[in-house]
Amino acid sequence: MGLKLVTLNKKQRTIIEVGDLMIGEKPVVIAGPCSVENMRQMARIAGFVKERGAHILRGGAFKPRTSPYSFQGLGVEGLKILKKVSKRFEIPVVTELMDTKDLKKVSRHCDIIQIGSRNMQNFSLLKAVGKAENPVMLKRGMNATIDEWLNAAEYIMLGGNENVILCERGIRTFETKTRNTLDLSAVPILKGLTHLPVIVDPSHGTGKKSLVIPMSKASFAAGADGIMVEVHNCPESAKSDGDQSLTLKEFEKFMKEIEGWL
Amino acid sequence: MGLKLVTLNKKQRTIIEVGDLMIGEKPVVIAGPCSVENMRQMARIAGFVKERGAHILRGGAFKPRTSPYSFQGLGVEGLKILKKVSKRFEIPVVTELMDTKDLKKVSRHCDIIQIGSRNMQNFSLLKAVGKAENPVMLKRGMNATIDEWLNAAEYIMLGGNENVILCERGIRTFETKTRNTLDLSAVPILKGLTHLPVIVDPSHGTGKKSLVIPMSKASFAAGADGIMVEVHNCPESAKSDGDQSLTLKEFEKFMKEIEGWL
Amino acid sequence: MGLKLVTLNKKQRTIIEVGDLMIGEKPVVIAGPCSVENMRQMARIAGFVKERGAHILRGGAFKPRTSPYSFQGLGVEGLKILKKVSKRFEIPVVTELMDTKDLKKVSRHCDIIQIGSRNMQNFSLLKAVGKAENPVMLKRGMNATIDEWLNAAEYIMLGGNENVILCERGIRTFETKTRNTLDLSAVPILKGLTHLPVIVDPSHGTGKKSLVIPMSKASFAAGADGIMVEVHNCPESAKSDGDQSLTLKEFEKFMKEIEGWL
Amino acid sequence: MGLKLVTLNKKQRTIIEVGDLMIGEKPVVIAGPCSVENMRQMARIAGFVKERGAHILRGGAFKPRTSPYSFQGLGVEGLKILKKVSKRFEIPVVTELMDTKDLKKVSRHCDIIQIGSRNMQNFSLLKAVGKAENPVMLKRGMNATIDEWLNAAEYIMLGGNENVILCERGIRTFETKTRNTLDLSAVPILKGLTHLPVIVDPSHGTGKKSLVIPMSKASFAAGADGIMVEVHNCPESAKSDGDQSLTLKEFEKFMKEIEGWL
Repeated sequence: MGLKLVTLNKKQRTIIEVGDLMIGEKPVVIAGPCSVENMRQMARIAGFVKERGAHILRGGAFKPRTSPYSFQGLGVEGLKILKKVSKRFEIPVVTELMDTKDLKKVSRHCDIIQIGSRNMQNFSLLKAVGKAENPVMLKRGMNATIDEWLNAAEYIMLGGNENVILCERGIRTFETKTRNTLDLSAVPILKGLTHLPVIVDPSHGTGKKSLVIPMSKASFAAGADGIMVEVHNCPESAKSDGDQSLTLKEFEKFMKEIEGWL
Repeated sequence: MGLKLVTLNKKQRTIIEVGDLMIGEKPVVIAGPCSVENMRQMARIAGFVKERGAHILRGGAFKPRTSPYSFQGLGVEGLKILKKVSKRFEIPVVTELMDTKDLKKVSRHCDIIQIGSRNMQNFSLLKAVGKAENPVMLKRGMNATIDEWLNAAEYIMLGGNENVILCERGIRTFETKTRNTLDLSAVPILKGLTHLPVIVDPSHGTGKKSLVIPMSKASFAAGADGIMVEVHNCPESAKSDGDQSLTLKEFEKFMKEIEGWL
Repeated sequence: MGLKLVTLNKKQRTIIEVGDLMIGEKPVVIAGPCSVENMRQMARIAGFVKERGAHILRGGAFKPRTSPYSFQGLGVEGLKILKKVSKRFEIPVVTELMDTKDLKKVSRHCDIIQIGSRNMQNFSLLKAVGKAENPVMLKRGMNATIDEWLNAAEYIMLGGNENVILCERGIRTFETKTRNTLDLSAVPILKGLTHLPVIVDPSHGTGKKSLVIPMSKASFAAGADGIMVEVHNCPESAKSDGDQSLTLKEFEKFMKEIEGWL
Repeated sequence: MGLKLVTLNKKQRTIIEVGDLMIGEKPVVIAGPCSVENMRQMARIAGFVKERGAHILRGGAFKPRTSPYSFQGLGVEGLKILKKVSKRFEIPVVTELMDTKDLKKVSRHCDIIQIGSRNMQNFSLLKAVGKAENPVMLKRGMNATIDEWLNAAEYIMLGGNENVILCERGIRTFETKTRNTLDLSAVPILKGLTHLPVIVDPSHGTGKKSLVIPMSKASFAAGADGIMVEVHNCPESAKSDGDQSLTLKEFEKFMKEIEGWL
């Protein structure tokens, strides 16, 4: 692969500080809705998940949707809501960046910048966040090999930003019972190849909320540094990904089930 | 899917008795070499793994090999070795059946009959073991959907043999860092759809012995009823699958690492 | 790959004689229903396709079906129908063998023995037909690499039977618009690697009869030695694969469209 | 899918005018190197392919490379070379756009804007070229379903730019003999679903120059509106994709072999 930065200082794992959090040292839980829909929804979810132990809030303001006729996200308005909620509930936020031209705005309104699966090889975007101050959560492309994924991380790190979190979120296979096939073998492989923290997204990785608890436990057992789950106060009316979102009540159960791993 | 037998008595999980073992009730460890090579090798491995807590011994007498020039297994001679070792060390054995004409011999010399991945849709073979006395371990085809796998189980059960153990062993994807992509989501999905025990084979599922411990833990965390691992007293000289086999010493470590799950 | 027989006499392509046909020398058309259903159906189809120029009749007596509750074929009764129809209309037949124990019967009732996709790595079956007198049509497994496929051919040839026809029939991918993804690149690759004839099955390869004509033309353009298509006198009431079968009228149009390639 | 624009005026196919060319009416050949390397190289290739009958020149100025340590393209300098060569040899050019911020520059220097596979779901980029004057060649993502691909086209057309050319370039599967698996079934499927021109890229689709001629013929036989091939005056020293590039001499042979299709 010819990677330099990703595998550089293997003896010392990368620990990413976000406020009081030390990602890579202690397992984290990232929770929140697929899309930021309005202030009321975000405040409700943020308050709830924070109180039950979530460490980071997720929520998309810019949404990469397969169809142009689907909800595309609130954009800057969504970023502002995230920022306010983050302050009010004292919880850091991660949100997706889709276009280099929005980097400044996204950077100012969130703690961690997410690069989504569909943009894992959007090299202009990778180079741009390589210059950002924020840590970057790089989701695996749904058809990306581990080598390609690490090369994408290298694009970011080569720009000077070595705070990269890798997020396994399932790959595309022939199996149709799940939305994607969660590749948990990637976790120990990555822990062996790189010094970067690795988290798992079982919500997108399986597309079924009934699988979130067992696959989260399996992820921790495989060595993951954290889990990102979708939570919505009202999944059936969510503007995106309702099927795979936990309700608030289900999230409460989820936290109890995994508390031994935190 | 139109399945009847597999999903019939959901309220009551199938428990398969093999000697004192109750597969489906308490997690089991199946260990042994890919191929039966000779009596000395099998006795060495069987004695070792039994003492460290393995519940069942594995070993192939008939070997499905991609190339006709590769070692094809000892055949009936291998079955006899298995039987003797099984008696001597008081450990049940599982071995693969590849041809309907060998059913009687295989049936007499082992406790559990394995149907391998490449034969998961060898319907003649499925029908034949549906009439056998022995429990059947049905490995997932490397390109089989969960629906196809359950239909294959149905072929066996329809013949009258309801003692079927499902074994996830990885599916074929584009990723080349692992031999196959271990699909652990299949475990909770199957536990929800069927009453049959589900075990996982991380040795074939990943092809790398360094992944056996983390992926075994992850399998148990996902709800698996057991693990099947390849163990060889001298992997570098093994006649097949040396790369993915644990040494005896590594197996000892493996058992310590997973003991909390047993 | 270490293949010997498949790549042995590259300078001289294998030509397989079946009656007056020389498969590998001039493109052939194999046509017929998925399953042999009854004498009337077979006679109707055989007479029709023979008159329009088909060279070989296909029809399954033993059917590998995903579900045990689906029609499993007429068995020996089907073989007898095939044989009678073959004589009456003076057209050779190809039919699938699924179990080593049926080899003699199948061998006597047909001209070419088909090994189906699901049995491409049923090594006992491959070894058995390696001893047969009949030419063998070896379909590609739906998850088989070209290397594995050639190794399967090698199993047959090593037994002494060098009359092997390779049949590309689509591989399993993530795309769901087609039943499988027809891998036409395999045709020129195989023509370069082996001396064996290569034919294509666009019916199973796509699962859609609307694609049969364009993909047949594409197959010939890529260098295929023949095409196998499903034809049924009444697809909507066919016991299997009705959706992908051409009607008699459509077959007539098909033959006109491809006549420039024959 | 809920598509509107892509399937709007099915009775009338979209014909895209580029200078004197009518793409969608008569098959076209697009040829050129992977990357623009310098003026001398481009002039040599452009002159040669134009004289042998190529209709459009290709060449990348911005290169999406897996590794950040690989040649990233000449950027604006490359665009200028393309423009000059285009004028001098009177041949339209197609080149890739990777970042919304470069749209104006790319737009001014080329005739057709290419959206590459890795950016097929870079929705910001799709929206941007939806406002451009130039026709857009949209390559299929290597893991994109046909539905996702058409939705990506819809993003562009919804912006007002209905001059979209779809380019099949292979999908990612388990087969390793080819770089990708060229999905030629996509051609007749797309011709049935949309009114847009469909071309095929056998160079990237197979990764092997020995397959370019047979797969180009197969593409035309399947109904493609054109072929895009990589040609380099000195493939062994090419800065990218040397293995799959035809030499000038091979391109000459290629044009002779396919002339019946033009």
